[in-house]
Amino acid sequence: MGKIADLRQSDVAGRVTPPGGTDALFWGSLFHGLDRDGSFLQLQVRQMIVSAIEDGRLPLGARMPSSRDLAAVLKVSRNTIVIAYEQLVDQNFLVARERSGYFVAGLPRHIGATTHEPSPAVRDDDRWASRFALRPTAYRNIVKPLDWQAYPYPFIFGQFDPSLFPTNDWRESARAALSVPEINNWARDMIDGDDPALIEQLQLQVLPRRGIRARSDEIMITIGAQHALYLIAKLFIGPTTRIGVEEPGYPDARNIFGLLTPNVVPLRIDGEGLMPDADFESCALAYVTASHQCPTAVVMPLARRHALLQAARSCGVILIEDDYDGELIPEEGELPPLMSLDRGSNVLYVGSLSKALAPGLRLGYVVAPAPVIRELRALRRLMLRHPPLNNQRVAALFIGLGHYRSHLARVGDVLLERARILDGLLPRYLRHCTWSRGAGSTHYWLSCRPGTDTVKLAELARAEGVVIEPGDVFSMNESASRHCFRLGFSSIRTERIEAGIERLGKVIARVA
Amino acid sequence: MGKIADLRQSDVAGRVTPPGGTDALFWGSLFHGLDRDGSFLQLQVRQMIVSAIEDGRLPLGARMPSSRDLAAVLKVSRNTIVIAYEQLVDQNFLVARERSGYFVAGLPRHIGATTHEPSPAVRDDDRWASRFALRPTAYRNIVKPLDWQAYPYPFIFGQFDPSLFPTNDWRESARAALSVPEINNWARDMIDGDDPALIEQLQLQVLPRRGIRARSDEIMITIGAQHALYLIAKLFIGPTTRIGVEEPGYPDARNIFGLLTPNVVPLRIDGEGLMPDADFESCALAYVTASHQCPTAVVMPLARRHALLQAARSCGVILIEDDYDGELIPEEGELPPLMSLDRGSNVLYVGSLSKALAPGLRLGYVVAPAPVIRELRALRRLMLRHPPLNNQRVAALFIGLGHYRSHLARVGDVLLERARILDGLLPRYLRHCTWSRGAGSTHYWLSCRPGTDTVKLAELARAEGVVIEPGDVFSMNESASRHCFRLGFSSIRTERIEAGIERLGKVIARVA
Repeated sequence: MGKIADLRQSDVAGRVTPPGGTDALFWGSLFHGLDRDGSFLQLQVRQMIVSAIEDGRLPLGARMPSSRDLAAVLKVSRNTIVIAYEQLVDQNFLVARERSGYFVAGLPRHIGATTHEPSPAVRDDDRWASRFALRPTAYRNIVKPLDWQAYPYPFIFGQFDPSLFPTNDWRESARAALSVPEINNWARDMIDGDDPALIEQLQLQVLPRRGIRARSDEIMITIGAQHALYLIAKLFIGPTTRIGVEEPGYPDARNIFGLLTPNVVPLRIDGEGLMPDADFESCALAYVTASHQCPTAVVMPLARRHALLQAARSCGVILIEDDYDGELIPEEGELPPLMSLDRGSNVLYVGSLSKALAPGLRLGYVVAPAPVIRELRALRRLMLRHPPLNNQRVAALFIGLGHYRSHLARVGDVLLERARILDGLLPRYLRHCTWSRGAGSTHYWLSCRPGTDTVKLAELARAEGVVIEPGDVFSMNESASRHCFRLGFSSIRTERIEAGIERLGKVIARVA
Repeated sequence: MGKIADLRQSDVAGRVTPPGGTDALFWGSLFHGLDRDGSFLQLQVRQMIVSAIEDGRLPLGARMPSSRDLAAVLKVSRNTIVIAYEQLVDQNFLVARERSGYFVAGLPRHIGATTHEPSPAVRDDDRWASRFALRPTAYRNIVKPLDWQAYPYPFIFGQFDPSLFPTNDWRESARAALSVPEINNWARDMIDGDDPALIEQLQLQVLPRRGIRARSDEIMITIGAQHALYLIAKLFIGPTTRIGVEEPGYPDARNIFGLLTPNVVPLRIDGEGLMPDADFESCALAYVTASHQCPTAVVMPLARRHALLQAARSCGVILIEDDYDGELIPEEGELPPLMSLDRGSNVLYVGSLSKALAPGLRLGYVVAPAPVIRELRALRRLMLRHPPLNNQRVAALFIGLGHYRSHLARVGDVLLERARILDGLLPRYLRHCTWSRGAGSTHYWLSCRPGTDTVKLAELARAEGVVIEPGDVFSMNESASRHCFRLGFSSIRTERIEAGIERLGKVIARVA
């Protein structure tokens, strides 16, 4: 490995026939897929040559076309090819020989001649099935078409809207994190630590927006909010622990808890969210979405919040508050999260940064009392040490430069406008439905006539280019919310909303 | 939230006294810590102003110094301040008023007036201790001083060496990942998926170096190799599962398994690594470091590899192969990993990208049969969905542009030189010790005279500026390897090795 095999002169000069020589067809096919309008043309050329060398299409000693010829075949500037070739020489992928051009250099020695090609018997699922301690694929999940961006009317929840991403501001922050001192900050293994700069920015700019003050030893960064739920669950739930979940509620939370205990207790909700009833009081922990109940989107009124905290305090119920889209839309009627009202320290708070920015970034956090954070850090250390530090540093710079605040202001305005439009459209086009959406929520929860199968409805809607999320998966009792669906508006373009709702209305009328 | 509070003229013109006015002392203290030699001076200034506005040191309506005055106080160019102010105006942190200068604009509305200030009783560890289902802090861990970079002679294993980081090549890849089409690739939620470009590069350039061929449905990306171990453990280990670990062995693997079962079985090793004995055959799974046994660094010979695979096949033992530093040093005597020799598909392979690049990045992977990868993906989805996609894309570009290969060649040369130097120095300065290091390993395993306490030795060495890692934590029986220590050389500068070993030799002689 590592060493470049010697390139013998004879290989170059004589024995190896350059594949295709100057044959434009060969080179054209090798660079098939080159995006001439794309940026980084020179990088694309280099990637394609490296690939062809690595997979053997360009063998050792093959002569590359002259930069002039290749530029002509690819219809790019000659300079692009010259720079690409020179870089590949620096990397030892090519060698330059005076007056004869560029040739493919050797590949590093690969270890072992054997290859991993499992026999067909091995592919047998049954053999493996008998060895698994659990079957994560067996859990019911929210299903979103992965290609939702290909649909013209994606009323999908919590996904990325390219038109809202703060491209230039993110770039500025990401580039700043590539300076040598910053690389030294993020390149190390922090064992169980986090980037202190990100913790500081959460304290200074993010948590105060939610009325929460926390010390640095009360905060931990996670790989998205979901990871925070997983860690809390693992720390607190033993095989006999009773944990309550809202019914209907967030299926991934239910699934995570179900990995650890059979005692996942459905808890009643009403128009004010989770009810502090006897079932609630019987639980050791309860998962709650007070800001906007998932999936019904109702806001828990202040009196209910205090009642819930009171019940939690007197019965020793630990509340896991998932404030999953708490800060996206600035709208009258929002209320402070349970964490900020809590006087008994019964609340563990879960928040997300990636929802406001880009889900692909996976940045979330937990706020909890220091003894809890201490154990969570030790657990996270065992599981994966820490979330990537380069992303923590970019996020810290992004927030620290004021971009987070101005981004939220911009996103909030857009989302609020979309909600106002939908408020007007739903009564007009979806007369067969009822719906709820509390202040600040980024989705509506709609109920069709009883008996409607929204799985089928979603399928029919997709055929019309409209993506909605069927409601069945949110209930432990599958049939209970089969006639409901979630309608998100954080990923659909504002000007497409009306046409989408009109189409959806027609599909619903057809089904009803 | 989000809305910038109105800035009333009267606030600006009259009532609010700018704090300190042109007082150079005030502004000097506000910008205390400005690194004039650092890059991104203008960004630093903006971050400091944003911070001061967010935490109230610069209240609503405060008048900023003129760009000329502030530039004079901070001794930076006036243009730096002008650009910073203009950007802050765009972001609504400041407002500009004709002929009177720049003023602090309002902060967004914060939700709730209450603050989270837990009462002292709450801080009580005991109250929480009774609620935890497990105590992750109670596990014994490898302890490295977090500030190891501050020591002149850090013989530490697996940490970052700034002199080896491929700064320019990483930057090129990171910048390429910031183009608009690339952002659209990585910003989305992939649910249980990974970046197909990174999977492809692993198939094309990374796995072949280890003699492994795998289909795309046999590979999954993880948050570092440790996360891969955790996921595999969680999938396969139930409360009664017997899992074998090398003794001595990697403590974090032992700890992860110990979270899931009490039946963690110590397995015997000899000078050829793990032995396929009756204890081994009694296990459902066994964790093995064949390339370089952790911590003894011995390379398992080919015959032992085949014997182990044979025993695993006939007794149904699943092997978890942690190839933790398999590809860093190109050295004669290395052998293909078990995975590449396996004919019975009994091997689950764990690898790391972040070890070769930067531990802070946390990028690892699993190679395993498709039915296993399918369950691992479902489990990872519940736990955290997927490793951040922006880092996956940067890594894919870095490898695809050929940088990974040339980086490994460079790192390999440097590390091999360090090993050669140490091979010469150890007999000279550490005569009281014996040691082992197999081909390709990035550390030595040293044994002092029986009775030596290397925890104390490490402490004394640190006082001399030398960092080593005591051996006790590697054994389940703490006292078994208390006289041993690990000496890594991937983070110490080559020219410092001799002085460090000389100092270490003196400390050992003193203790012995």
